Amino acid sequence: MPPLAAHHIKALTKLSPHLPITSSLAHHFTDWTGKYPSRSYEAIKTSTDQWHGTCILRPANVEQVSSILKYATTNKIPVVTQGGNTGLVGGGVPIQEDEVVLLTSAMNKIIEFDKDTGIILAEAGCILETLQDHVRPHGYEMPIDLGAKGSCQIGGNVATNAGGIKYIRHGSLHANVLGLEVVTPDGKVLDLSRSLKKDNTGYSLKDLFIGSEGTLGVITKVAIESKPISKETFLMLVGFQTFPEVVAFFRQAKRYFGMLNAFEFWDQVAHEQVVHHLKLQSPLPTCPFQVLFETEKDPLDFLEESGAEQCVLADSVSQQLNLWSLREGIPEALSKCGKVWKWDVSVPIDRMMSVVENLEGDIVSGYGHLGDGNLHLNIVKSSMSKEMERSIYAKVASMGGSISAEHGIGQAKSEYLPLSKDANSLEVMRNIKAVLDPAGIMNPGKIFPSASKEC
Amino acid sequence: MPPLAAHHIKALTKLSPHLPITSSLAHHFTDWTGKYPSRSYEAIKTSTDQWHGTCILRPANVEQVSSILKYATTNKIPVVTQGGNTGLVGGGVPIQEDEVVLLTSAMNKIIEFDKDTGIILAEAGCILETLQDHVRPHGYEMPIDLGAKGSCQIGGNVATNAGGIKYIRHGSLHANVLGLEVVTPDGKVLDLSRSLKKDNTGYSLKDLFIGSEGTLGVITKVAIESKPISKETFLMLVGFQTFPEVVAFFRQAKRYFGMLNAFEFWDQVAHEQVVHHLKLQSPLPTCPFQVLFETEKDPLDFLEESGAEQCVLADSVSQQLNLWSLREGIPEALSKCGKVWKWDVSVPIDRMMSVVENLEGDIVSGYGHLGDGNLHLNIVKSSMSKEMERSIYAKVASMGGSISAEHGIGQAKSEYLPLSKDANSLEVMRNIKAVLDPAGIMNPGKIFPSASKEC
Repeated sequence: MPPLAAHHIKALTKLSPHLPITSSLAHHFTDWTGKYPSRSYEAIKTSTDQWHGTCILRPANVEQVSSILKYATTNKIPVVTQGGNTGLVGGGVPIQEDEVVLLTSAMNKIIEFDKDTGIILAEAGCILETLQDHVRPHGYEMPIDLGAKGSCQIGGNVATNAGGIKYIRHGSLHANVLGLEVVTPDGKVLDLSRSLKKDNTGYSLKDLFIGSEGTLGVITKVAIESKPISKETFLMLVGFQTFPEVVAFFRQAKRYFGMLNAFEFWDQVAHEQVVHHLKLQSPLPTCPFQVLFETEKDPLDFLEESGAEQCVLADSVSQQLNLWSLREGIPEALSKCGKVWKWDVSVPIDRMMSVVENLEGDIVSGYGHLGDGNLHLNIVKSSMSKEMERSIYAKVASMGGSISAEHGIGQAKSEYLPLSKDANSLEVMRNIKAVLDPAGIMNPGKIFPSASKEC
Repeated sequence: MPPLAAHHIKALTKLSPHLPITSSLAHHFTDWTGKYPSRSYEAIKTSTDQWHGTCILRPANVEQVSSILKYATTNKIPVVTQGGNTGLVGGGVPIQEDEVVLLTSAMNKIIEFDKDTGIILAEAGCILETLQDHVRPHGYEMPIDLGAKGSCQIGGNVATNAGGIKYIRHGSLHANVLGLEVVTPDGKVLDLSRSLKKDNTGYSLKDLFIGSEGTLGVITKVAIESKPISKETFLMLVGFQTFPEVVAFFRQAKRYFGMLNAFEFWDQVAHEQVVHHLKLQSPLPTCPFQVLFETEKDPLDFLEESGAEQCVLADSVSQQLNLWSLREGIPEALSKCGKVWKWDVSVPIDRMMSVVENLEGDIVSGYGHLGDGNLHLNIVKSSMSKEMERSIYAKVASMGGSISAEHGIGQAKSEYLPLSKDANSLEVMRNIKAVLDPAGIMNPGKIFPSASKEC
């Protein structure tokens, strides 16, 4: 693709506030891991003056978003919507030289919060942590919590159908997002933003946009239900010698407590790296597997029954935070070991660690949201072969698993999507894309496998 | 429409088991309330022999469903899918003379149940109560519970996005249905039936079919997550003098307990009828408003704090059942008073009873799932004018409410759908319908307002 013509840039920047593209804004043209630079990234990064091949638009409201998309559809100009740019699959960055970056960050108002129901209506550019801070003094918590909460935006969370550590407690965004306002590629505004718990009126379009990764339109508002904060919680770290013991323990815990607030696990490799690189104290330095789990009921009887031998029950808020940092620090610690290749998959719980077996790399580690069957496999290795990448996804698929549990598809996994979606479903997805975005302007190159790359 | 041609009936009944249409099967051509008879209903009901204008197909498996739909699309034959035929909006019954009835009842196998995760995979024709009975001995309960559980089918529950008394505890079917198998009108089978808690791979097609009321395809399998049964529950009946007191009490309860297992309410009119017609004992015979609510935490301190004056805490399982029958018997009791007209709406909680005010009828009663803002307004009256019907929906819409909280749209509310869905969203819905069902064979006359009837 050639860069975008000057008259288009002129027209678009009249429709919306924009940021002149200089090398200091090059970060909008790649993801934070640096794995998915746009084709124009190097040119922008090394430019000494303004780069004129496309534009970064920062609309202030839904009307401006609508004008942008209408113009883009009419003139077949590709548009990528970018929230906090914290995604892990290259879904929120441009690919083509002429691709317009639409930043949602200026639409960051909290519109209303209902203290009685916990329902918050916010513009898409609101930072997740800002929403968290808004609802917390009223006794609520957001139903989603991510490591990236300080910079990710609620619109991006919804567009990627992000998961995180609260998923086991509060369910997916399909469960908690009550409504959306969306601009479709023709510039029309869909008012799906009702702040009602129950609304059974026709096709659930909001669910179509949840997880559509910017390929069907631009989410401009989100109505989401925050949840009452648990009055009292208990956080425990438990060590195990084998993975089957971990699984048995989870089953016991699920039966005993019914509801778990969190159930995370990691292997010894991850633990050694987090303790070393983040200089943390380890209460259980030598366990092959560790589990961090939170309950609302007193766990003492359970822990006795379960026969857990190595166990630490946090006795203060600061100890709770310390235990959480052992889990939350893992991605950062592994990134300090070298180039990290990541797989975010879900498989039947008892088979999670068999995904991690017999893999080559400088460091091979498995951790994740065990309660949801969601494994994060990380491999530190200077380079990753397509064969190895594919063979891991193929193994997951052969177990009846999903090649993306919570990160989405983006650029990273589009060619593997047929491993998780049958041809008929893919065809329906393509047909829906075509009917909503006939010009194909919304986030091209994401989600759908290109014909030549299908596996 | 003329009846279906004999050669089509012959062809279709070769593709699938069928039931010869006699007057004893006339109930498949109307709903249980008798409000939505098919145009051929009278002819069938009064026929002395077999009626030859259409056919009732009862496919045994997904392949037969696929053949039926393929033939129907090719030959533009309308098809209505019928589960337990317990719906309230005429969504599961034929309208036209030539409309083929596709019964899901023969597809009633439970395929697998995972005792560790609670995930059950079942064919669409399984009765909800059968699934309930299947999971309960293992310590689980279905996430949905309805008065019709003895005859409604899980496929129909999903197609209507049914709600019920467990909604407040477990959320909607969008939260709990993990996957579906669906046959699209062209006969293609979509394998969306993964029994995984997390699967973030492209558009969430299963959510598009949840609540699509048989207009986009036929659901043949459902993977759904059942939930651990609460170890201990407390059920209370509390009486109030005014509705604002009810609302204040709900707010207090939500804050105190965080999670509520149920929170139902009814007015004095409903109570008098249920006590009278079902010959029940009333613990609180003279309260203008009553609330039935269930918690997992001991409520004694809360009840003291709240200052609730009239309160009964169930002290045995049989007393729990007695209290529940005061709520669950209301629809039946009102149906014994005469012809009942029903509105199932959701509005902001504090305005629920203002929907019920100043309405004319022999009996006017409001009850429902207060915790979800879901009001069931019932009016007993010999006839209902279109003006009155419309004015009630218009009032709900003016409050920012939804004209259908949990019953769906079907035939009953299609002309009012524009009160709850803006024109752009309706257009997207129509486009999606057209792309999946270009011949328009699936459940014609449901959900979408006909051009002449739009309000």
